[in-house]
Amino acid sequence: MEKVRIESMDAYVYPMPMTIIGAVVDGKPNFMAAAWVSRVNFKPPMMMVALGAHHTNLGIEANAAFSVNVPDVSLLEKTDYCGIVSGKKTDKSQLFGVFYGSLPGAPLIRECPLNIACRLNQTVKLPFDTLYIGDVVEVYTEERCLTDGKPDIKKIDPFTLTMPANRYWRVGEEAGKAWSAGKKLKA
Amino acid sequence: MEKVRIESMDAYVYPMPMTIIGAVVDGKPNFMAAAWVSRVNFKPPMMMVALGAHHTNLGIEANAAFSVNVPDVSLLEKTDYCGIVSGKKTDKSQLFGVFYGSLPGAPLIRECPLNIACRLNQTVKLPFDTLYIGDVVEVYTEERCLTDGKPDIKKIDPFTLTMPANRYWRVGEEAGKAWSAGKKLKA
Repeated sequence: MEKVRIESMDAYVYPMPMTIIGAVVDGKPNFMAAAWVSRVNFKPPMMMVALGAHHTNLGIEANAAFSVNVPDVSLLEKTDYCGIVSGKKTDKSQLFGVFYGSLPGAPLIRECPLNIACRLNQTVKLPFDTLYIGDVVEVYTEERCLTDGKPDIKKIDPFTLTMPANRYWRVGEEAGKAWSAGKKLKA
Repeated sequence: MEKVRIESMDAYVYPMPMTIIGAVVDGKPNFMAAAWVSRVNFKPPMMMVALGAHHTNLGIEANAAFSVNVPDVSLLEKTDYCGIVSGKKTDKSQLFGVFYGSLPGAPLIRECPLNIACRLNQTVKLPFDTLYIGDVVEVYTEERCLTDGKPDIKKIDPFTLTMPANRYWRVGEEAGKAWSAGKKLKA
């Protein structure tokens, strides 16, 4: 296996989960597309999103709240639109149906099959991006997305992003069982 | 769309990219499976991984370095094994072929189609997990994984994780072009 070096700027994990981040800016819900998002703490559950200098950041910081919404493939164009049009110039508050849990600063997208409302816990400033780390306050889905009471990725039908190729991808076939497939290698 | 609430502990993005984190512990390469990993800064490129209290952490902190390796589906069992067996009890240094870039603390896995060597930049302690944020120093792939000089996800053939269902997933069909598919919604 001959290795070749590529640009450090092209360091990405493959693939990245596509989400829509919600916040309330100047009294109105605003939404942006983001793929640099991850669970970051087991107990209590916490989520992280890394954002450049976006309009959304103003709302996250003002209200100490944000939402992580997982769109399905039918929302791909709207998700992408949220990623190419800034809330600074364009009102995106009517793009989706919006509902709220207990956090008035975390607008949740009715059309998205999974919604996570977060209270801002801490902020980490990096040279270009800011990490917003939030405590998970509520998680919503729909009955049709559950199998045995757990979210089922095939029913959620999310999509992922690859950079620098800038492509979205569906989820494919099941490849194995986690914390199980490797047992046969145990001595 | 009737919404139902689920447990906050079940707050995950769908799906999560599966990686193998490398570090040198007590002079030996050690590897663990991790899916809470993301790019977190645009310029300069930085990566983040959130880890519980693992053997790997000792090496990351001692050498201020770690690696993010993206395994392909053929490495699924070995990856899972890295996630269920601790380096504290089991020597995983012979599990893969190992090579190094300029960081002696960031062991890179020869069999993985993508390797990212990181110098630890900062550490964020959360209640349960620790965020290790690193500057990307080098990125390696193989010629066979490139299309037009960029990493090609179909050639890399990575897999993703879903929790709490604990399943791995292949990447499916292309679903659209990023920063493009939403243009038709522009007024």
